Amino acid sequence: MRKIRMGMVGGGRDAFIGAVHRTAAALDGQIDLVCGAFSSTAEKSKASGADLFLPAARVYANYEEMFIQEAALSDSESMDFVAIVTPNNSHFDIASKALRAGFHVMSDKPATLNLQEARALQTIVTETGLLYGLTHNYTGYPLVKEARKIIREGRIGKVRKVVVEYSQGWLSTKLEDEDNKQAAWRTDPAQSGACGCMGDIGTHAENLLEYMTGLRIIELSAELTTFVEGRRLEDDGNVLLRLDNGARGILFASQISVGEENNLNIRVYGEQGAVSWQQQEPNRLVLNWLDRPEQVIRAGANNDLAPVSVYNSRTPGGHPEGYLEAFGNLYRNFAGVLQARLEGREPDPDDLDFPTIDDGVRGMAFLEALIESAESTEKWTRIVEA
Amino acid sequence: MRKIRMGMVGGGRDAFIGAVHRTAAALDGQIDLVCGAFSSTAEKSKASGADLFLPAARVYANYEEMFIQEAALSDSESMDFVAIVTPNNSHFDIASKALRAGFHVMSDKPATLNLQEARALQTIVTETGLLYGLTHNYTGYPLVKEARKIIREGRIGKVRKVVVEYSQGWLSTKLEDEDNKQAAWRTDPAQSGACGCMGDIGTHAENLLEYMTGLRIIELSAELTTFVEGRRLEDDGNVLLRLDNGARGILFASQISVGEENNLNIRVYGEQGAVSWQQQEPNRLVLNWLDRPEQVIRAGANNDLAPVSVYNSRTPGGHPEGYLEAFGNLYRNFAGVLQARLEGREPDPDDLDFPTIDDGVRGMAFLEALIESAESTEKWTRIVEA
Amino acid sequence: MRKIRMGMVGGGRDAFIGAVHRTAAALDGQIDLVCGAFSSTAEKSKASGADLFLPAARVYANYEEMFIQEAALSDSESMDFVAIVTPNNSHFDIASKALRAGFHVMSDKPATLNLQEARALQTIVTETGLLYGLTHNYTGYPLVKEARKIIREGRIGKVRKVVVEYSQGWLSTKLEDEDNKQAAWRTDPAQSGACGCMGDIGTHAENLLEYMTGLRIIELSAELTTFVEGRRLEDDGNVLLRLDNGARGILFASQISVGEENNLNIRVYGEQGAVSWQQQEPNRLVLNWLDRPEQVIRAGANNDLAPVSVYNSRTPGGHPEGYLEAFGNLYRNFAGVLQARLEGREPDPDDLDFPTIDDGVRGMAFLEALIESAESTEKWTRIVEA
Amino acid sequence: MRKIRMGMVGGGRDAFIGAVHRTAAALDGQIDLVCGAFSSTAEKSKASGADLFLPAARVYANYEEMFIQEAALSDSESMDFVAIVTPNNSHFDIASKALRAGFHVMSDKPATLNLQEARALQTIVTETGLLYGLTHNYTGYPLVKEARKIIREGRIGKVRKVVVEYSQGWLSTKLEDEDNKQAAWRTDPAQSGACGCMGDIGTHAENLLEYMTGLRIIELSAELTTFVEGRRLEDDGNVLLRLDNGARGILFASQISVGEENNLNIRVYGEQGAVSWQQQEPNRLVLNWLDRPEQVIRAGANNDLAPVSVYNSRTPGGHPEGYLEAFGNLYRNFAGVLQARLEGREPDPDDLDFPTIDDGVRGMAFLEALIESAESTEKWTRIVEA
Repeated sequence: MRKIRMGMVGGGRDAFIGAVHRTAAALDGQIDLVCGAFSSTAEKSKASGADLFLPAARVYANYEEMFIQEAALSDSESMDFVAIVTPNNSHFDIASKALRAGFHVMSDKPATLNLQEARALQTIVTETGLLYGLTHNYTGYPLVKEARKIIREGRIGKVRKVVVEYSQGWLSTKLEDEDNKQAAWRTDPAQSGACGCMGDIGTHAENLLEYMTGLRIIELSAELTTFVEGRRLEDDGNVLLRLDNGARGILFASQISVGEENNLNIRVYGEQGAVSWQQQEPNRLVLNWLDRPEQVIRAGANNDLAPVSVYNSRTPGGHPEGYLEAFGNLYRNFAGVLQARLEGREPDPDDLDFPTIDDGVRGMAFLEALIESAESTEKWTRIVEA
Repeated sequence: MRKIRMGMVGGGRDAFIGAVHRTAAALDGQIDLVCGAFSSTAEKSKASGADLFLPAARVYANYEEMFIQEAALSDSESMDFVAIVTPNNSHFDIASKALRAGFHVMSDKPATLNLQEARALQTIVTETGLLYGLTHNYTGYPLVKEARKIIREGRIGKVRKVVVEYSQGWLSTKLEDEDNKQAAWRTDPAQSGACGCMGDIGTHAENLLEYMTGLRIIELSAELTTFVEGRRLEDDGNVLLRLDNGARGILFASQISVGEENNLNIRVYGEQGAVSWQQQEPNRLVLNWLDRPEQVIRAGANNDLAPVSVYNSRTPGGHPEGYLEAFGNLYRNFAGVLQARLEGREPDPDDLDFPTIDDGVRGMAFLEALIESAESTEKWTRIVEA
Repeated sequence: MRKIRMGMVGGGRDAFIGAVHRTAAALDGQIDLVCGAFSSTAEKSKASGADLFLPAARVYANYEEMFIQEAALSDSESMDFVAIVTPNNSHFDIASKALRAGFHVMSDKPATLNLQEARALQTIVTETGLLYGLTHNYTGYPLVKEARKIIREGRIGKVRKVVVEYSQGWLSTKLEDEDNKQAAWRTDPAQSGACGCMGDIGTHAENLLEYMTGLRIIELSAELTTFVEGRRLEDDGNVLLRLDNGARGILFASQISVGEENNLNIRVYGEQGAVSWQQQEPNRLVLNWLDRPEQVIRAGANNDLAPVSVYNSRTPGGHPEGYLEAFGNLYRNFAGVLQARLEGREPDPDDLDFPTIDDGVRGMAFLEALIESAESTEKWTRIVEA
Repeated sequence: MRKIRMGMVGGGRDAFIGAVHRTAAALDGQIDLVCGAFSSTAEKSKASGADLFLPAARVYANYEEMFIQEAALSDSESMDFVAIVTPNNSHFDIASKALRAGFHVMSDKPATLNLQEARALQTIVTETGLLYGLTHNYTGYPLVKEARKIIREGRIGKVRKVVVEYSQGWLSTKLEDEDNKQAAWRTDPAQSGACGCMGDIGTHAENLLEYMTGLRIIELSAELTTFVEGRRLEDDGNVLLRLDNGARGILFASQISVGEENNLNIRVYGEQGAVSWQQQEPNRLVLNWLDRPEQVIRAGANNDLAPVSVYNSRTPGGHPEGYLEAFGNLYRNFAGVLQARLEGREPDPDDLDFPTIDDGVRGMAFLEALIESAESTEKWTRIVEA
């Protein structure tokens, strides 16, 4: 057993999500950052690499160079996988080239800019046989896993209704005009794709719903709105859902809901019970039952949670874990599977629990259906993955 | 000044809402219950009247008799108004006969069984010039009034998005087959009308939204579902909304959401701020702002609330008021206007703050649009009041 | 069966607690206010009586006159009991005279100005055999009764620790100098007695603790502080407690805790479980257990609460009841026992559930021990009732 | 600038706090674990070192050996500081030897077994001029720092009252008899010192109070209780406090409060306002004011928090940070000061914000006063540091 070696594309100075990926990867002491192409210019990339204590030789001007140079290093030195933390429009190119060069991939979401790219990438992943992880990070929370287990074991009975929300307020004004890099690329169709709010956060809601319930959204009716004048992508979306078991649902997301920070929450109502979880208080899961009082489950490694939930916890109850730990669980599991490959053994089943390119294809199909529905006078639009 | 005299139709033994109306009316010592026709049989009515310490002579076998007899009494003795607390299908007949007999009316919601009746009743109210109050009781909470004032004064800016929910779980099983009187009539189209859940509680959500924001829903896209097998009316509804100022909204209501008791809540997001209120913790109003921290306003007569909110409070902050007090505010205001009429003066403007037949017509138009939309393949259906 | 007839001493215009008592008494339609001596001057008393729609003949200049005149009325007309809602220093005189005149008594707390008076009043109650109720109103909440039952049945095991708090902030400044009647008498030793904060609200905490647990405080160590300069009575108190089963406790009360409104809350920890209740969210009771997840019990007449809790509820779950309903439960139970007396039958056992003169004596002994302890250098002071 | 190199004493397999320290140190990519003496046996130490991917040559049989060997390595290789994560009784010996050998120290709390040792260690720190950090980790939370700033700037006015609590329930039964390593050493006077609960968690409460308010506890009145039969140290403590500005306080801690996980919370009431913070929902700070509504501040790097709070945050608002991130802030700041030393410059003032040996001396003096008070019949006992 040895440490897994990570390279990074993107995530230089001023970036937000790059630092999150690095911290998430570092949490458990199993992954070392060994190289990177951190920025669109060689100079900025060097500076960022120095900040991160990397030797200059392993800081590259661009990802193409990185893949070539790293592939040329010995097996005991070269990176094992690359973390992709650039804007959406480059994900496909970077991921496909990395895979073709023989490197496993951990990509920020969305997987690609559109469904066509996502399906192409899915093919490359299959062909290369390499690992591809997608950071739908909210599935990394222990109590999301606990809820999933409760639902999938049938403890709340057949699911009837799901309400999932992802509300933010930070784009309530035209921040993209105020030199805010995060706002700028997220509201730019060239970098973000055809969706704004729904691509950025709506897909997290979709992914969480399907991960937690094991159900699939088959039809939807969407209204997408751009509230901030002059903005080029929608900043709010409300959607009615029909799920594949006959359940009904509501999904709404917003970036103009003043006062909301990162309010992702989900409620799943079944015939016998219900579960409710909120990302901003992630260490608390509320269970309701037809015939007995409400229960409140709290996260923590020493609690009577399911083994998979304990496996994804690092501290005892009452020691709050959060966003970075949940994110770290994706990296930990990904690294666990990679470690097993390196050692030629079967991975621990719990380590297989991270989103893959299939989730990426699914998310893109969801977004394309949203857009079709938003422009249609028909009430219902089907999600088609092909 | 004298006490206002109330008669009641319905609300005998085993009823739920009758006792609520009586308590609400009694809270402030301004209204006396003086007579009633409490049940569908003369015998039961008598027994209920005795429970309520009424003299036998003022307990009637039915409402027709009551209106005739009370009208024959002297002005210093006869009832001033009648409270109607029967199932929906009788509301129109009772209210119109009461008005025709010269009695003011306070009616449980919905005003009538359908839009046609509601419009007819609206005409009668206008013709008779008498008072008609409708107990959309959730508008009676002080902090609902506070939120309304904040929104209407423009403090949160132009409203962009509204999310209103009314979730219950008590009809998750087929309770109407288990000798539950409340469940039986609510799921019976003959007594309830064309809607189940949406008529029973969805209209409260609609009314609350329009009361609080001053906006009107103009178009909607609805899905209504009957989850419990064999049930004759829908027990769940999810609706996308378009409001008359361009705002968007979501309204959902359910009676199969296991674990939910009476979870009515509303969030209104504007360009500058947002308000959030939950009926189950009604003494707390959360305000969010673009440019400053969240504020939490608490109810209470000694707080720095708007005068109208203080006027509708009975105790200092920290002494929780609830459902009955909010309900009582409708009665208190109604009685205040009636008192002013008796004394030939203009009513206190704050007393005019109770729902009327116009809200009743509005609610019926909303329900008819819901049904039309639910059966349509068109995405949007307009609300038409005429 | 007939309505119970109530007279009132105090509670004229500008008073706070008088209106609370009247509403509490009116809630269930079993009690009529028939007479009163509402103020210290005959003129004000008349005006207040008129506000309350009382016939002038039944509005008295003072309580002595009221007791004489009412006693002279026929049994079918005279008041049955008197509600005392004056400042503390007059409680003993009014109550003892009422009892001597043959009237039952419902008194605001504290029962008297000091322990000596309380014991004297206890003797009079015993001698007259009449009913005496004391409005330690917080024991009226359904979930306080539920907690009491859970603890007394031993479900949380032997009690080890109790933490009870009653924090307010309204006296953080010298309000008694600003023409605030409520502040003025509460900080005046002549009207309030030897304690300020602890007499006004600390005794509610003490009473709640003993009511809920069935345990008795036997020793205490107190620090009483006057934070607002020039105030004549303490406005804050912190107390260590020893209970009669060996349990330990903390009781603290304050009227200078800025931002606190009426924050009475209690936690009881036993060997097997724990209960937690907060007055400001009174419809929620949290239960914790050694070996299973937290449970949240919600109030409501249709819930699976103990019969006594349901008996003291008026609405289904999710329809919040509050301060006035809890207060009303004391009146409802008191009236139930009185009704039984009038009919010569045994009272319903649930109706016996209201505080009596024994709670009054207990409260006074607690206050005297507090004062003794606060002035002592000894760590522990015993509570002595004799 | 280079990475800081950490060695570790303790924290082998089965330990809890060692992994916490390693994660905390790794979070920001500035510190590398380079060596360790992880266990009391050489064999176990080797196994733990291998788990952590350390070269065998840097895994030592014991700390004496480690200090000698590491001191012999070149400056570009040897560890910079040692993290001490063993039971309390060894802290003094390890820390003093490390300092004497020229290594900076980051120690788990308490600093030592008793006050005498703490003062001796304080002298050694002074003499060697090296850095000594103590992981009173709860001071690492951004909103604790925000509260501290608000209080110290006088925004809530002169502090009048503080209530600080640290309640747990995990020692409600005699876990030390059930092969629970954590319970065993914490209840063993030889390993823990003279206090159980109060040493383990009570000192965190004391430290948090003094850190946040800038005030000092000068006198206290304590009751310490051992509830679990046969336990050798107290498992519960309730304490009245007097602070150096005249404020009053309550501090209570417990490990037998069933259902409590890690409930550390603090409320500070001043003349003009109040702050309230809870460790289990650490990203929320409640502010109350004499003259305006409650405010809720939420953590997050993009919020309008004080610079020091933002500096100690890693993610935007709504992305919950927790225990590990707060712990990491101590390491990050400690490493920042160390980095400045290595570079011969003044440290960033924000980096000086971590607990030191002075906090360790303070904590020991507090514990000795607690014990003296608990055994005394005098009400008040002074804290004496000398």
